[in-house]
Amino acid sequence: MNSDYELIIIGGGIAGLTAAIYGARAHLKTLILERQTCGGLANWAVEIENFPSHEKISGITLMERVKTQAEKLGAEIREIVEISAIQFNGQSKRIETDEGTFQAKAVIVATGREPIRLPLEVDSDHIHYCAICDGSVYRGRDVLVVGGGNSGTGDALYLLNQGVRTIILIEQMDRLLANQASQKALCAHPEVTILTSTEISGIAVKGKDHWVTLKNSRTGETQTIEAGGIFVYIGQAPQTGLFKGILEMDDQGYILGDETMETNVEGIFVAGDVRHKTYRQLTTAMNDGTIAALAAEAYLRSLRSDSTK
Amino acid sequence: MNSDYELIIIGGGIAGLTAAIYGARAHLKTLILERQTCGGLANWAVEIENFPSHEKISGITLMERVKTQAEKLGAEIREIVEISAIQFNGQSKRIETDEGTFQAKAVIVATGREPIRLPLEVDSDHIHYCAICDGSVYRGRDVLVVGGGNSGTGDALYLLNQGVRTIILIEQMDRLLANQASQKALCAHPEVTILTSTEISGIAVKGKDHWVTLKNSRTGETQTIEAGGIFVYIGQAPQTGLFKGILEMDDQGYILGDETMETNVEGIFVAGDVRHKTYRQLTTAMNDGTIAALAAEAYLRSLRSDSTK
Repeated sequence: MNSDYELIIIGGGIAGLTAAIYGARAHLKTLILERQTCGGLANWAVEIENFPSHEKISGITLMERVKTQAEKLGAEIREIVEISAIQFNGQSKRIETDEGTFQAKAVIVATGREPIRLPLEVDSDHIHYCAICDGSVYRGRDVLVVGGGNSGTGDALYLLNQGVRTIILIEQMDRLLANQASQKALCAHPEVTILTSTEISGIAVKGKDHWVTLKNSRTGETQTIEAGGIFVYIGQAPQTGLFKGILEMDDQGYILGDETMETNVEGIFVAGDVRHKTYRQLTTAMNDGTIAALAAEAYLRSLRSDSTK
Repeated sequence: MNSDYELIIIGGGIAGLTAAIYGARAHLKTLILERQTCGGLANWAVEIENFPSHEKISGITLMERVKTQAEKLGAEIREIVEISAIQFNGQSKRIETDEGTFQAKAVIVATGREPIRLPLEVDSDHIHYCAICDGSVYRGRDVLVVGGGNSGTGDALYLLNQGVRTIILIEQMDRLLANQASQKALCAHPEVTILTSTEISGIAVKGKDHWVTLKNSRTGETQTIEAGGIFVYIGQAPQTGLFKGILEMDDQGYILGDETMETNVEGIFVAGDVRHKTYRQLTTAMNDGTIAALAAEAYLRSLRSDSTK
């Protein structure tokens, strides 16, 4: 097996796959390394309405199409690959994985974000972070949703659609932060209870059931409720553990890139949700992937022309 | 007719249409004003292979889909509207057109670029800037293509496919600048002559035929050739005439925007090819349109919360 590439992309979400499309079309020998399966957070979206050219499309369908496109153009994709170490010094960058070591002179980091886990030590298979992934088994059951932003309310509506019996949705702040349309739909539903200024103070697991103690942060009052499953939406964190001390990041761990997505390390580019920026959408991630790949191609070209001088 | 909107987008290419999708989904009363028909330069692309989620799609089909999507989400689109004056002072921005005056507190400028015209005074209906628009009538005829970049070579290949008899392609520089694949395909074609370091020094029109004098800039030699049609690809220029002296621009007339696409004038945002930046692709234009619409929405929200204080 030849483990030498011209461009390696770490992460197969929309940013990484777009970079692969542009890398492959520029005739770069391109590899994507993905820890899980390709698609990233978009796979978790039931229905996407703001991706130009698709009025409505499921996240999984969309990402499957983009992945196929990247492969047909010639990009190589390896899924379920765990990276153990990276070596970004010098011109040739090395990435060590459980499937061997891969090398390239240009690397794009597109590792995205993942949900922040519930900060409680609980041993349970019924705490989830994605209704589309794990919601179907809760038909007819009572569910707790944690977080009143767009993700939490959106997935609560999805769970109701899937036939859960009741939902209690709790939000730490004194109001929901979701868009008005979702809030309205949720408030109008007879089987939904919304509790603001409320946090989980403890969870006791008994078989398949969870006894969850909720605390009102304004009054100090507590109550205990029963939930078959708990769906958690308390934010996202950038996946940058591998790059700490190597790539420059902001206070929250997002990687800094310049106008051409290059990081502080020559030959290493950043794209997508993992990059320090204001707005994170599919369209903005495609932008980053495009620019990172075109800038990587220009960088590789400059190395070749240096070596022939 | 109510001419008051919350968001007016000038230009209905991919940047403007994406901004409209995001504006409409944010429940802003959104209007697109387009000078021609929607779609922008993408309409001129025979086949697009680098738009994520479509392996191959014609520019016209793609843009028709995006336009329909924006309309279904609630954006209003007015085509064939000529703007005569703009007034960006103060909170309420006014746009005067041949269909009346429109007002909004936020405006996105997404006017794109257009081909640079052949710098010769010639009265002819057979000088073109888009093979997909105008190429079909040249089947069996001899055609001159001016410009050896990606546009010129790409459209030359398209014209051959449409059945033109011969092509002479001229390029001012001493080599073609197009991607290797297009250059190779063109050079291999028996009916194509490529002349580098060559410019047009004069055109004489006789009926449907053009006698074109070509000059080699290295040797000074001239030759005269006959061409049924002339297709010109000598670059693109930003469409910013309306905004001169109002919006800050770079030396080439591209509008400067900050990280959230806001210009030097409060409430005026810029998106797409008309913005000062390095890479211009469909994906990067969608990024700009997304961010400009989300930033405009935040700006409008800040005005409302100021007015309730």
